[in-house]
Amino acid sequence: MQARLIGLDWGTSTLRAYRIGDNGEVLEARELPLGIMQVADQRFEQALDTACGDWRTAQPDVPLIACGMVGSAQGWREAPYCPAPATQQDIARHLVTVPLANGNRLQIIPGVLQNGRLPNVMRGEETQVVGVLDTLAPVQPVLIGLPGTHSKWVRVEEGCIRHFDTFMTGELYAAACAHTILGRTQQPSDQFQAAAFDRGLDVALSSEGALGPLATVFSTRTLGLTGALRADEQPDYLSGLMIGHEVAALRAIRAPSSIVLVGNGALCQRYQRALERAGVSRIQTAHQATERGLWLLALAAGLVHP
Amino acid sequence: MQARLIGLDWGTSTLRAYRIGDNGEVLEARELPLGIMQVADQRFEQALDTACGDWRTAQPDVPLIACGMVGSAQGWREAPYCPAPATQQDIARHLVTVPLANGNRLQIIPGVLQNGRLPNVMRGEETQVVGVLDTLAPVQPVLIGLPGTHSKWVRVEEGCIRHFDTFMTGELYAAACAHTILGRTQQPSDQFQAAAFDRGLDVALSSEGALGPLATVFSTRTLGLTGALRADEQPDYLSGLMIGHEVAALRAIRAPSSIVLVGNGALCQRYQRALERAGVSRIQTAHQATERGLWLLALAAGLVHP
Repeated sequence: MQARLIGLDWGTSTLRAYRIGDNGEVLEARELPLGIMQVADQRFEQALDTACGDWRTAQPDVPLIACGMVGSAQGWREAPYCPAPATQQDIARHLVTVPLANGNRLQIIPGVLQNGRLPNVMRGEETQVVGVLDTLAPVQPVLIGLPGTHSKWVRVEEGCIRHFDTFMTGELYAAACAHTILGRTQQPSDQFQAAAFDRGLDVALSSEGALGPLATVFSTRTLGLTGALRADEQPDYLSGLMIGHEVAALRAIRAPSSIVLVGNGALCQRYQRALERAGVSRIQTAHQATERGLWLLALAAGLVHP
Repeated sequence: MQARLIGLDWGTSTLRAYRIGDNGEVLEARELPLGIMQVADQRFEQALDTACGDWRTAQPDVPLIACGMVGSAQGWREAPYCPAPATQQDIARHLVTVPLANGNRLQIIPGVLQNGRLPNVMRGEETQVVGVLDTLAPVQPVLIGLPGTHSKWVRVEEGCIRHFDTFMTGELYAAACAHTILGRTQQPSDQFQAAAFDRGLDVALSSEGALGPLATVFSTRTLGLTGALRADEQPDYLSGLMIGHEVAALRAIRAPSSIVLVGNGALCQRYQRALERAGVSRIQTAHQATERGLWLLALAAGLVHP
């Protein structure tokens, strides 16, 4: 089947390429360790051909669209942020064009900037949000959670990105394990330590959690010192504690009752567990949001047609 | 003048030795990079002699007392924690004796353990607290703050350590600067960036601070991206943000109106600035608390006499 679009999810460490057919159907998907940090000397077109040169040779004029850090200042071409509040149409109007050697062009999707006293940025997540919205009733307000190194929580109303926050939970968790005293008594576990994770959640969601993560994380060490937490339980206890603090903070931003999670399956499961423990019951999980978002933004920009 | 006591503040990275005369007067003080992590193969007595072998030769029978990580499982001899609530007398009753080659003995002061759902430990700070209390009216409840890599906040009532909390603010700050994306856009500054520090405090103490440090720290990057914070302002902005979150959390533990800060001068100044910004006005700063505490615990244990 002929492709209608090549969609690229081009992040810091990974390049995912999708060959997309009629109605946005994904015909083929590839994942390569060719994120923008792995591309030397601006050889982005070479990386593109490594990923999908065969698709391009077969259809030299097929439209190409990309989202993610490829549009950052460190990427192929900077795509200036689209200001929030932002709709799908707003984002599609801000695509940045990169000419390719064969005369074809690549369109790069901009990130979204929410300016203000505490500015916030996303790059790549806006495409996932567009993909998620396609599966939801358009008027219902929803909070879309995108767990990751930097997790995003995006409030959408009537198809418009109204507000979002970023939590550095994932990156701070990794730094705490690798570069603080908490790592010294930890042992990795082969399996998910559910009871330890839940215990961390319970602390964060309790009145003791009001001290905040700067204080509660020390309990990972002291519960170990007092024999109340095994070394192989400590990583998941700390994970539950930190994700629990993130979920507790969501209460502070008046979360809509309806939540959709998107992203890595295992991580989404941890967040789902945390949200349920915090009393949030209406949680959905979305799949293939990026592929869908790439197709929808290409449609909105007139690169492809229904 | 003859020494009555040799006092040692023996931590992870530093060994401080005090030659102490009548009434606890410090006759001489030394600081060496001979913390317990720098002492190989259990050669603690050799390190002791490097620090103050001349004092010991001059007075072979002078009593010796030590506080700090030297009493941890990784130190010279483990001094099991004294349980909280703990008074000066309780701590003095739990000294652990190490015989020395010349027939003299070293007494090691135990740390304090507060057991419970979120256990807490201190080792070394209990001696500082004892030293601080000597300068205060005994019946007044007070919150003693000991800023550091792991800062401690100790609630004392009628001379008794009632409750304490630990914040890993210092260590998490260092890890965030050195091992997360926040470090990539930072530049160190030759001087304290007071306005940036205060801006961080204000965010943490504002309603936006309710999102907690896992979220607000990302603003260090986004304020840089939007040109609102220079690279050399970012370290002190982040410092203000994190110390501000710590101070905001103290509200959650019903801080007594009277606060005493002990420790590194520059760091105490940052905390004093943060507390004042949070509306706490009655702040004192204590000095020579460790030396005083070593003397007082030696007195309480009968090693020296008034």
